Amino acid sequence: MIKVVLIGSGNVALHLVKAFGQSESIDLVQLFRRNPKNDSLFNPNIPKIDRIEHLEKADVYVIAISDDQIAEFSKKLNVKDSLVVHTSGSIAMDQLKCDAPKGVFYPLQSFSTDQKIDYKAIPFCLETEFSNNMDLLKSLAYSISKNVYEINSIQREKLHIAAVFANNFSNYMFTIAKEICDEHQISFDLLKPLILNTANKINQIDPKEAQTGPAKRNDNKIIQKHLNQLTGDQKDIYDLISKSIINSYLKD
Amino acid sequence: MIKVVLIGSGNVALHLVKAFGQSESIDLVQLFRRNPKNDSLFNPNIPKIDRIEHLEKADVYVIAISDDQIAEFSKKLNVKDSLVVHTSGSIAMDQLKCDAPKGVFYPLQSFSTDQKIDYKAIPFCLETEFSNNMDLLKSLAYSISKNVYEINSIQREKLHIAAVFANNFSNYMFTIAKEICDEHQISFDLLKPLILNTANKINQIDPKEAQTGPAKRNDNKIIQKHLNQLTGDQKDIYDLISKSIINSYLKD
Repeated sequence: MIKVVLIGSGNVALHLVKAFGQSESIDLVQLFRRNPKNDSLFNPNIPKIDRIEHLEKADVYVIAISDDQIAEFSKKLNVKDSLVVHTSGSIAMDQLKCDAPKGVFYPLQSFSTDQKIDYKAIPFCLETEFSNNMDLLKSLAYSISKNVYEINSIQREKLHIAAVFANNFSNYMFTIAKEICDEHQISFDLLKPLILNTANKINQIDPKEAQTGPAKRNDNKIIQKHLNQLTGDQKDIYDLISKSIINSYLKD
Repeated sequence: MIKVVLIGSGNVALHLVKAFGQSESIDLVQLFRRNPKNDSLFNPNIPKIDRIEHLEKADVYVIAISDDQIAEFSKKLNVKDSLVVHTSGSIAMDQLKCDAPKGVFYPLQSFSTDQKIDYKAIPFCLETEFSNNMDLLKSLAYSISKNVYEINSIQREKLHIAAVFANNFSNYMFTIAKEICDEHQISFDLLKPLILNTANKINQIDPKEAQTGPAKRNDNKIIQKHLNQLTGDQKDIYDLISKSIINSYLKD
């Protein structure tokens, strides 16, 4: 059994508690959180503490709190021999300011509170300060997921930027599409098969080859017709992305 | 049996031939195409013609050719009593310049040549000039799909714009993500579960509520850090979409 203390009470902490709870090789010793407001969402059997002096001994301390609090919190963490990891995609490992061996345990997933997630499919990106800690961190990751990768701090930062495009920005494209549908009394259901199909294509072909649409065809007549019907941010985004698609295929 | 003549030899025509072929209520009488270069992709049992004088009688003529050729081609179509439809998302019904009753038969799907598609899931958007032709067009659509909608020309145009965002632009976000991964020797496989998860969320919650990421959190420190690592179109797109996300949540 790997003894784990989890720090945090947000979405990442919540999902890690659920995922650790499904594993027989993890003993979740404590949950440390400042604010008890989300306690009802967490498994009631896990001891919850709010004072750092009450931290128990564990093999791994997993810090799943806001990016900007990681350095500050880790300074106060009085841990020497156990592994201390954070779960952030955008914070370097050396932002952990404790004396213990450091690492990163980054689940590359966007967690919404209510959503059911297949944890086995989530890629975990691991990094450790000392190579002899990697086995322990891998065991922890494999207890949850079957997709485990060693990724250094520079790669993790780039990966996070890539994920902003792949995840946050693609979702925003869905939001704009729904706004347009709503405005013209069109059911957003009409677009759902298309969205799922577009996403599923990434398992079959390179997204660059999967590209379709007026910009891919350099069809300026349609692009102009669409731009004339858009205003504000929607128009600016349509214009910029179309130009970028056109340029990227002209280069080939 | 509904007798159909299909006009075209591109992706839409190819997939419609496959879809009609799976239906027992459709008799695909002929395929008209100017250029025989794609003939090997099509079912060899379907008679193929390249002269408009050789067109046979059918209940429905389905014009699945480039947007900018639809008006010109339909002028030459010597059809009086049968229904003539085009399959375009961005061309109004009255761009059909023939004497026959007109309609639109628009499959809201982005077709790649090699891809296996569940035709039953594709939404078909139908419009007819005369209401008494709608039943025939619906029968044709239901012979392929279970998702059939009546959508007028204005709605269809808006829907097409929405689909450009939901489909073409989200795919381009995947392309940029892959470019960033490739540049830093990171496997794009790492992002695939995330992409599929983001897309699947639309079946559970409104994309506006599903939004996550630095812009949603108005986290300017991370946004600036990311912008500093990007150049060219990637930087401009990151900047514009982030600002738009920030503004759209500030308004709420």
